[in-house]
Amino acid sequence: MAFKTDIQIAREAKKRPIQEIGEKLGIGSDDLLPYGHDKAKVSQTFIDGVQKNSNGKLILVTAINPTPAGEGKTTTTVGLGDGLNRIGKKAAVCIREASLGPNFGMKGGAAGGGYAQIVPMEEMNLHFTGDFHAITSAHSLLSAMIDNHIYWGNELEIDTRRVVWRRIVDMNDRALRQITASLGGVANGFPRETGFDITVASEVMAILCLARNLEDLQKRLGDMIVAYRRDKTPVFARDIKADGAMTVLLKDAMQPNLVQTLENNPAFVHGGPFANIAHGCNSVIATTTALKLADYVVTEAGFGADLGAEKFMNIKCRKAGLAPSCVVLVATVRAMKMNGGVVKADLGAENVDAVKKGCANLGRHIENVKSFGVPVVVAINHFVTDTDAEVDAVKEYVKGQGSEAILSRHWELGSEGSADLATRVAEIADGESANFSPIYPDEMPLMQKIETVAKRIYRADEVLADQKVRNQLKEWEAQGYGNLPICMAKTQYSFTTDPDRRGAPTGFSVPVREVRLSAGAGFVVVICGEIMTMPGLPRVPSAENIRLNADGDVEGLF
Amino acid sequence: MAFKTDIQIAREAKKRPIQEIGEKLGIGSDDLLPYGHDKAKVSQTFIDGVQKNSNGKLILVTAINPTPAGEGKTTTTVGLGDGLNRIGKKAAVCIREASLGPNFGMKGGAAGGGYAQIVPMEEMNLHFTGDFHAITSAHSLLSAMIDNHIYWGNELEIDTRRVVWRRIVDMNDRALRQITASLGGVANGFPRETGFDITVASEVMAILCLARNLEDLQKRLGDMIVAYRRDKTPVFARDIKADGAMTVLLKDAMQPNLVQTLENNPAFVHGGPFANIAHGCNSVIATTTALKLADYVVTEAGFGADLGAEKFMNIKCRKAGLAPSCVVLVATVRAMKMNGGVVKADLGAENVDAVKKGCANLGRHIENVKSFGVPVVVAINHFVTDTDAEVDAVKEYVKGQGSEAILSRHWELGSEGSADLATRVAEIADGESANFSPIYPDEMPLMQKIETVAKRIYRADEVLADQKVRNQLKEWEAQGYGNLPICMAKTQYSFTTDPDRRGAPTGFSVPVREVRLSAGAGFVVVICGEIMTMPGLPRVPSAENIRLNADGDVEGLF
Repeated sequence: MAFKTDIQIAREAKKRPIQEIGEKLGIGSDDLLPYGHDKAKVSQTFIDGVQKNSNGKLILVTAINPTPAGEGKTTTTVGLGDGLNRIGKKAAVCIREASLGPNFGMKGGAAGGGYAQIVPMEEMNLHFTGDFHAITSAHSLLSAMIDNHIYWGNELEIDTRRVVWRRIVDMNDRALRQITASLGGVANGFPRETGFDITVASEVMAILCLARNLEDLQKRLGDMIVAYRRDKTPVFARDIKADGAMTVLLKDAMQPNLVQTLENNPAFVHGGPFANIAHGCNSVIATTTALKLADYVVTEAGFGADLGAEKFMNIKCRKAGLAPSCVVLVATVRAMKMNGGVVKADLGAENVDAVKKGCANLGRHIENVKSFGVPVVVAINHFVTDTDAEVDAVKEYVKGQGSEAILSRHWELGSEGSADLATRVAEIADGESANFSPIYPDEMPLMQKIETVAKRIYRADEVLADQKVRNQLKEWEAQGYGNLPICMAKTQYSFTTDPDRRGAPTGFSVPVREVRLSAGAGFVVVICGEIMTMPGLPRVPSAENIRLNADGDVEGLF
Repeated sequence: MAFKTDIQIAREAKKRPIQEIGEKLGIGSDDLLPYGHDKAKVSQTFIDGVQKNSNGKLILVTAINPTPAGEGKTTTTVGLGDGLNRIGKKAAVCIREASLGPNFGMKGGAAGGGYAQIVPMEEMNLHFTGDFHAITSAHSLLSAMIDNHIYWGNELEIDTRRVVWRRIVDMNDRALRQITASLGGVANGFPRETGFDITVASEVMAILCLARNLEDLQKRLGDMIVAYRRDKTPVFARDIKADGAMTVLLKDAMQPNLVQTLENNPAFVHGGPFANIAHGCNSVIATTTALKLADYVVTEAGFGADLGAEKFMNIKCRKAGLAPSCVVLVATVRAMKMNGGVVKADLGAENVDAVKKGCANLGRHIENVKSFGVPVVVAINHFVTDTDAEVDAVKEYVKGQGSEAILSRHWELGSEGSADLATRVAEIADGESANFSPIYPDEMPLMQKIETVAKRIYRADEVLADQKVRNQLKEWEAQGYGNLPICMAKTQYSFTTDPDRRGAPTGFSVPVREVRLSAGAGFVVVICGEIMTMPGLPRVPSAENIRLNADGDVEGLF
């Protein structure tokens, strides 16, 4: 049997006008700002008007540590949303936007897969509604204003060696990672070293995704630290007087984007912060708006549960006052096999023992999620080669952990395949058994927060950090930043900092290389490995094969 | 009497849904891709479908050399469009888009002024429909791919000292004018000098504005020269294999944007190339589409007629097969006075002699436009302090030149004030007296083309160019570029290269400092003065005062 590709399925989608999708959530066409016929922003006025509504139930979809086998987290998020709608529930999906630049290096991707996708796929991989361009503009304005301030006399006494605000572009451009700027003489300013990151790595992106409204957005933008003086006191974006104009540039981008699933159910696709140096979730404003409009909101977080769910709980939910009613942990038989030691080439053959062995990774994630006080259900995202015996092995293992695993076939069948999962998730959410709480309190010292996550989530024996890191954390505490949550940046492939250690390792340490303060976003980034904030293009970038064909369709992007 | 500001008038506009505006031109709502409720792109499918329609009449609005008094060229373009609609003609306006970056340095501006404006004003000064962001993306992709090609082995043997393709950003950022890129070691590439221009200076912008369709766009993008080898042979964007992906990034941006005037008449606002190193006109695709849909299309060109109209005729019309039926030359009594030697502070007092003296500038422009075989009418854009005697002096002078000047009060009265002008313009256009021809043939040698423009339009005695420039032109001729038109880059304030020489100077030379080949856009840029392709921000950028007020309106942008 030959399967259709994601793009083939997406192109065959019978999309409904976006106004019809809005109607399902009670959004009138005046309150939808259309971008073409299949995308729209929800107006700020409408969002303000629904604040009195009660909230629906929030469901987080997270996953085991990713393997090359693929887990299908977004696919399951979309499939579950469609499944809930199929069983008569009013449900919406909330996911992140894709970054434009990387699609010209490696191929772009669907939002979901198979018969559980969000469309329009092409636009979501290109300019979409311009949100990321607005972020690039706002970030670039601040960059220009900082050097302009220095140029005109540097009244704020910025130490030009200590400008921490870099520049950004939404493109994989390694040549810009490190540059010397302001060359060419007096008219161009004071030469200094700086560099570019990719747009999704901008603190402005993290802020847009955490701000509750435009007022909060502007405050957070103003709070960003852009440089230090010789005496090491910080200079804020507010001191540069950039916060007002940046807010103006971001006012449309702050409005969440509404699109649809293949089954014409509403999906909000908004914001896309990095999942390492930032928190990796879609925007707070999209999630909170969706909760005012739908009875069930299905969302996801980047990477596996050790990073994604942890940050979703400890950063996004804490800061936005959200509380998930249920967590869906996505696993696949194939990924269990890889965690059990099978190499990718051998995934096609039945191997129940490897499945059982690999389940240890799943088990630890189940325990971790429960430690936040939220009930968890495992979704086994079905793959055609899975055997009944393998699926049963996962189910049995999960049962032994006091939870439940449900086979879901949304990839192949759409909502028909996810109805069982949806039914069970709705029951759990309606049961209101969740008693959510972040795993550390605001007032815990920063170093102790790091240790809490490393020991309770990763199961490390200890955190290694030299005196410089420890002093830096103490300094920030003295400056009033001690109450911030931490944002862990480590490999997503393992509970440890070694990407090759799959399963559920023990007996390891977590070394902290560096800490960074994102004072506007409101977290302390804890870097435990190489972090790349500006990717490069491969030897043969996908861009070389991207073109319009004779029908005007995009080729080579997928 | 207190006048309302442009922004006050714009905010009071009774805008109609953009679908209604489209209907006036026979564009169904399926063929309009809306961006909010008051902006839309016209679909490529629709454009393809109307190619069989006959063309309306093309009317160019141009002006005398600009003075600090302001001439109101766009205001007159909009006023004339409204006037034509008022007298029962089916007319559309075509103007350029504004660049985002400069609005954060100096204040942004209206499209038009008073009661002759195009709305929505705020969006047009911010992200609008994202066209410029798409150009920035496409340009940046090519930039990244060039350095990536060098990084992976430089198969094309690019001389890294001779990469002529720079980078761009839509922001006034002087610190990026000259940089050293690819620093930081092996992983980041080979260090080399480069720099950033502002987006409107990109050759991609000029190409988008000259391409007839997506196929032509891709061909022109491929034709761009990005670097040279050690043997000085050119490396094209096509060699880098960037042309297909750039076209994909630009496919939406190629579709013209439809908005409306204050009087709810259709206006296309599309493209915005620099008027010095590029040709300074709105897109060919917007103009040709408008001509298929309206009986009269009113458009404008950047700067005064010596640059704007000349390039409109010799570059845009030549290349797109367009032929204007009538030219409207905008003058004001105040500008005549300044050309007659009056300083700005004294403009309020009646001074008929100065008006008469300043008319020489107007006279030369009238002659120049006629030399293209197109009838010309002078529009006196009325200002409240103008006296009857001053207006009469202009009218009499123009009559003496064998033409006609008409007072137009669209700024104050909208179409009621421009009906007379519209009536006369329609008569002239309908009279079909135009016999348009560019003033030099394709096959004329490049140096001779420069001399033709300098002598026939500017009235210079001679062109000064050193051997290096002359050799460069000959080399391009040998390479097959000799048939391209030239694109003059000189000050807009004077017929000469000295901005302080107003009026109609004689006895001067035009020194050519440098020539550049825009092989994709299809012209040779002739630089006759300082050309700034990356502006800086002033000491107090307008950004410092731009913010959202309590009503959510943008303050400080205007």
